Amino acid sequence: MSGSASEPQTAPMRDDAQVLPVATHPVAVAQALIRHPSVCPDPGPAQHLLARVLEQLGFTVWHLPFGEGAERTPNFFARLGTASPHICFAGHTDVVPPGDEALWTHPPFAADIQDDVLYGRGACDMKGGIAAYVAAVARLLSQGKQPAGSLSFLITGDEEGPATYGTQKVLEWMAQENQIPDYCVVGEPTNPRTMGDMVKIGRRGSLNAHIVVQGVQGHVAYPHRADNPVHRLLSVLDALRAQPLDKGSDWFEPSSLQVTSVDVGNTATNVIPAKAEARLNIRFNDLHTGAALTGWLKTVCRQHAPSADVSVKISGESFLTAPGAETDALVKAIETVTGRTPKLDTGGGTSDARFIALYCPVSEFGLVGASIHKVDEHTHVADLETLTQIYQTFLEGVLA
Amino acid sequence: MSGSASEPQTAPMRDDAQVLPVATHPVAVAQALIRHPSVCPDPGPAQHLLARVLEQLGFTVWHLPFGEGAERTPNFFARLGTASPHICFAGHTDVVPPGDEALWTHPPFAADIQDDVLYGRGACDMKGGIAAYVAAVARLLSQGKQPAGSLSFLITGDEEGPATYGTQKVLEWMAQENQIPDYCVVGEPTNPRTMGDMVKIGRRGSLNAHIVVQGVQGHVAYPHRADNPVHRLLSVLDALRAQPLDKGSDWFEPSSLQVTSVDVGNTATNVIPAKAEARLNIRFNDLHTGAALTGWLKTVCRQHAPSADVSVKISGESFLTAPGAETDALVKAIETVTGRTPKLDTGGGTSDARFIALYCPVSEFGLVGASIHKVDEHTHVADLETLTQIYQTFLEGVLA
Repeated sequence: MSGSASEPQTAPMRDDAQVLPVATHPVAVAQALIRHPSVCPDPGPAQHLLARVLEQLGFTVWHLPFGEGAERTPNFFARLGTASPHICFAGHTDVVPPGDEALWTHPPFAADIQDDVLYGRGACDMKGGIAAYVAAVARLLSQGKQPAGSLSFLITGDEEGPATYGTQKVLEWMAQENQIPDYCVVGEPTNPRTMGDMVKIGRRGSLNAHIVVQGVQGHVAYPHRADNPVHRLLSVLDALRAQPLDKGSDWFEPSSLQVTSVDVGNTATNVIPAKAEARLNIRFNDLHTGAALTGWLKTVCRQHAPSADVSVKISGESFLTAPGAETDALVKAIETVTGRTPKLDTGGGTSDARFIALYCPVSEFGLVGASIHKVDEHTHVADLETLTQIYQTFLEGVLA
Repeated sequence: MSGSASEPQTAPMRDDAQVLPVATHPVAVAQALIRHPSVCPDPGPAQHLLARVLEQLGFTVWHLPFGEGAERTPNFFARLGTASPHICFAGHTDVVPPGDEALWTHPPFAADIQDDVLYGRGACDMKGGIAAYVAAVARLLSQGKQPAGSLSFLITGDEEGPATYGTQKVLEWMAQENQIPDYCVVGEPTNPRTMGDMVKIGRRGSLNAHIVVQGVQGHVAYPHRADNPVHRLLSVLDALRAQPLDKGSDWFEPSSLQVTSVDVGNTATNVIPAKAEARLNIRFNDLHTGAALTGWLKTVCRQHAPSADVSVKISGESFLTAPGAETDALVKAIETVTGRTPKLDTGGGTSDARFIALYCPVSEFGLVGASIHKVDEHTHVADLETLTQIYQTFLEGVLA
């Protein structure tokens, strides 16, 4: 199926006969999703189950698989209504592998509940978050009045993997189809410990550099006849580390440069080697761009090691959704439901929000992330209900 | 045979029937020595030939082999007279391997002479130097008057190898036997290009250090939760390189610190590694000692990487024979014979002079060293005669 399909399509289902979960019940939706194993990339059924639930709620679904063969990635975009504001929820149905299943106290795809805790791969990252948003929408719609705006879902089956044929490609399609939302919430588990801890309103950028310095080999007793590439490389790394990159900005911590490896491999104690190399990573805030940092790296290398070869890979630029009406509504919803004021944060790793930020304002809020990617991933049943209420309160706020 | 033998012994000879070379003829002596192959360690015959020549000149020879099995090293001490001053010549009969003999234009152990050039392994390092000193002594003695002092030879069969059972052990024996000289000349090829270029009056010390820094592994996005050992190691190396060790001293170039390797081996771009290590060499002059430099290395490590493990191996301390009567006599002899004033130098690598300097003043002067350790090692026949005259003039000066 081509990714340019723009007409609503019926999802090919393996489980057409299956009874769909009650959409207003986040625990039921989460359990149904967990019981469709979808280790990255999602093979399809979990996502198709979700699409059917949304279709039942009245959404139009565009299935948008991209990539060929082993890279084929299921994705979909679903929308209800066409009015403004258009509020989108973005998430992924794929999960990381369970690892050694014998180490789990509950089978990773059984979605067992014990002592009010739901266990399973994806429970909080992020089938649980998806389920809460679905339930929030279902409850909103069940009130019988039409929302003053439109709702959509951007769902990918590859966020935990290379993410090449996922969110980025769907966004391109959405831009072509004039389906870019006014605001997007990503349902990643942003709370470190407790519901209401933290909303992500941006992320740092990330850049990896590999510096290779060639010198002139020689005997340590005659350094003037050699050109020690280790010393040149050390001077480069000194200069890069001499000053902090910045002191942080309004919404970001200071940027951070970490030298992750230096390698020479010279075992001869009396020989100045011919080559030295280093690898480093920069996590940078909104005071920098990947291109500007690349220029700076190359300038410093030119000063201390003119022959240095510098290769840079920018994994992602930093982005920030400066607080505005929608983020205020999300914060207010969290305060209303939990009684706590979340921190507006920009730290941590990367998510698909970095792609969405290129198109529209985006924030991230979901469950508690402490157990993600680990054995016995779990979420408290109460947190699923809390998150559902937060999402519903948020939607009522922005669509009022 | 034990190294504690203190009585004169007759050398066990394989070539007793062989006609000895004319001792006053440096070329004949050099050829005879080259034709007894003695790749390090000297198996014996070359050294025994030399001992027999000295015995014929009236020297008493103490054969002093040390080490057992494969490490057994032939050495001897020979002395003529007991008066002061006692002037010693130190040298080695072992040579480095010839490498691929097919690459030599003359067989490495044939001692061929072509166009007034003597070819062979050891021609200048240092069978030629030994031959010139033997000839100088023979000519001095042939004048019929007894020298106003005594002469000795300290000969080892392992200078090019580990040197564990060579000069050091003979010196210990000499100290026990009250045979320590007043001055020693080492016949190493000290002239870079032309006879008269350079006398070595000291050598720099050498020290190797290995620094291992343990840190705390972590994710690059959260450096505050990790402890990057690469950064600690870079800070150590910065501090060590921040200031030159010195600006040189009266007779020495500035000391030199070379970082020869830095190794981490971390291939994960998003991980702060747990360990980083570096290796460095310091060539140091007489303003430092190995112990003081070791203390400095450990202090700097403590400041920037308290958990660092620092292991140091001191290959040799620096030493200097400050110019005095004997060195003046050697310089004057060089000037008289060559018309050139040699540079008094302390650069370059190490030689057995570092052991001798612990007991008495020592200088080094010999042939031109350009071809040592190479294919087609050679010396000009004229240089052998020049060196013989220099040594004889020197001896006449110091024994006058």
